[in-house]
Amino acid sequence: MAKNVLLVGGGAVGAIAALNLEAGGSKVTVVLRSNFNVVSTEGYTIESCDHGSIKNWRPHSVLNQIPDVKEQASPPFDYIVCTTKNVADVPPSLAELIGPAVTPGHTAIVLVQNGLNIEKPLIAAFPDNVIISGVSLIGANEPFPGTIHQDFPDTLYIGAFPNLKISPQQTEMVAKDFVDLYARGGKTKCEYSSDVGWTRWRKLVYNACLNPICAITGLDTGRIRLADGAVEGLVRPAMEEIRAAAAASGHVLPEDVAHNMIEMDPLNMYLPPSMLSDVRKGNFIEYENILGEPLREGKALGVPMPTVQVLYHLCRAIQWRNKEAKGLVEIPPKGNFVG
Amino acid sequence: MAKNVLLVGGGAVGAIAALNLEAGGSKVTVVLRSNFNVVSTEGYTIESCDHGSIKNWRPHSVLNQIPDVKEQASPPFDYIVCTTKNVADVPPSLAELIGPAVTPGHTAIVLVQNGLNIEKPLIAAFPDNVIISGVSLIGANEPFPGTIHQDFPDTLYIGAFPNLKISPQQTEMVAKDFVDLYARGGKTKCEYSSDVGWTRWRKLVYNACLNPICAITGLDTGRIRLADGAVEGLVRPAMEEIRAAAAASGHVLPEDVAHNMIEMDPLNMYLPPSMLSDVRKGNFIEYENILGEPLREGKALGVPMPTVQVLYHLCRAIQWRNKEAKGLVEIPPKGNFVG
Repeated sequence: MAKNVLLVGGGAVGAIAALNLEAGGSKVTVVLRSNFNVVSTEGYTIESCDHGSIKNWRPHSVLNQIPDVKEQASPPFDYIVCTTKNVADVPPSLAELIGPAVTPGHTAIVLVQNGLNIEKPLIAAFPDNVIISGVSLIGANEPFPGTIHQDFPDTLYIGAFPNLKISPQQTEMVAKDFVDLYARGGKTKCEYSSDVGWTRWRKLVYNACLNPICAITGLDTGRIRLADGAVEGLVRPAMEEIRAAAAASGHVLPEDVAHNMIEMDPLNMYLPPSMLSDVRKGNFIEYENILGEPLREGKALGVPMPTVQVLYHLCRAIQWRNKEAKGLVEIPPKGNFVG
Repeated sequence: MAKNVLLVGGGAVGAIAALNLEAGGSKVTVVLRSNFNVVSTEGYTIESCDHGSIKNWRPHSVLNQIPDVKEQASPPFDYIVCTTKNVADVPPSLAELIGPAVTPGHTAIVLVQNGLNIEKPLIAAFPDNVIISGVSLIGANEPFPGTIHQDFPDTLYIGAFPNLKISPQQTEMVAKDFVDLYARGGKTKCEYSSDVGWTRWRKLVYNACLNPICAITGLDTGRIRLADGAVEGLVRPAMEEIRAAAAASGHVLPEDVAHNMIEMDPLNMYLPPSMLSDVRKGNFIEYENILGEPLREGKALGVPMPTVQVLYHLCRAIQWRNKEAKGLVEIPPKGNFVG
């Protein structure tokens, strides 16, 4: 029987994930926010290196809020795939958001999100549910609402987060079932990765470094390689700090991982990392899980991380600026001109 | 006889300096760029805590380029006061700019500019001229061309840069004469300070730290004190690194200097440091003399400066962005969409 999947966050990564899952026979309900109107009326317009050109594509169902499974007669969700940004310091939490759609002991929750320790609040909220790690290496963006450009093939690494209440055999089985669902359509690469920590730390070499450095300087991943001294003064030192922190926490990454991450995006594509796009749009940035958690973990293990530490605090200040702009913090009124 | 003064850079700091010097009886020729049209036709509009409200104020003479003293019959300039920004990495250099107005062996050059080692190119270019250090604690800005708001009293610390070809007695005398000229009008504080290095390092505690941190985060000096963790995570660590570098180079600053600099601007005035204003306007930033030089000096003396180092490289990347925007660097053309 077709699996019943709820996908939360139908931006670029989510739309391609929905396409892959439906290509494999799953029944996907997508929950959208900013692009709900256009997608529910016209469907997605997709230009993809994996899937080709697709117009007016609609998943099985499109909603503009999380469904409450206690109020509906339909079957429970087998999987909830979360492709939203993970902004840990701005409510509501992901656990609060998806809560109404989770069937305890049944629904597996797949976090296709970056950073460390993102599973902890979900394991706390849903202790009887399998929580799955998804690390995506896709390159995709949504230049206009509902229009998706995928210019770098999707590779999704899936693994199960350890959960004290559920046996490793059980979590592994659920994760492998998801790999099968995702890859079944045959258009994309989805791999089971037993070492979730290693996979997540590896991606942090890119995300914890290029994301904030590009966001702070306003330069994309091509320009940051051209700018005077930015690679040797900022990017590589930050990446080596992340590699050292990963090693201290038991995840030994290849020696050339920094080199490979720096050169991953083609220079002359001038691709903005997601955090730079967010800063340009005045959106909140997901800096706590991709910078704060590795920094805290590395420091607790005695790893010096001076570059990442400064980047973290700068991101925190930029987030505060966004919070003030959105009315989430109040400041004393301006004094009068003294002169 | 009235001293003949050329003032280069008639923005906020320059306009108030011209006002002080003319109040003391000097004849001031001001060289302007962006505000030349309005000042030459309507004069300055000044709202000042030191001078009160002044409308249509004109200095002795207003020019839109540096005069060539070899081509004019008028007497040489006794002083050239430079209140321009010092953007060391973008030509022309200050020495090239003011060259035509300098009379060798006669004109004293007063650098009312921030940072370290700013005198070196000028001593090299004009070895027979006295080069004077001016460190200004004024709070002033130019919200519209020709309109100056001064909301924090002017205190100018004057001293002579050491010069191998001129005796200390001579340079000290010329510097003290300038103090007399500047203070003579009675509206402002101008002090002779024998230890130029100490005075410059002291101001760097503010400039090398609050300037880049505010410029990078987009927060003014009030908001940076309110933003989550920014003072303890960024401002104070950077300031303590500058204090340590100052001490290593022989300039022991007070233990509470960081505290005093953090609280110097009234929080609820929400004042933008000059570098934040420059970033907002897309102007070049003067990061080499206020961050690069103290960093190089501190590192050469073995002082760990991890915070300042990251700030320096971020400023360098932001400057590169400005250079690209102004057409000073070229980058490879954008590749085609791959999908």
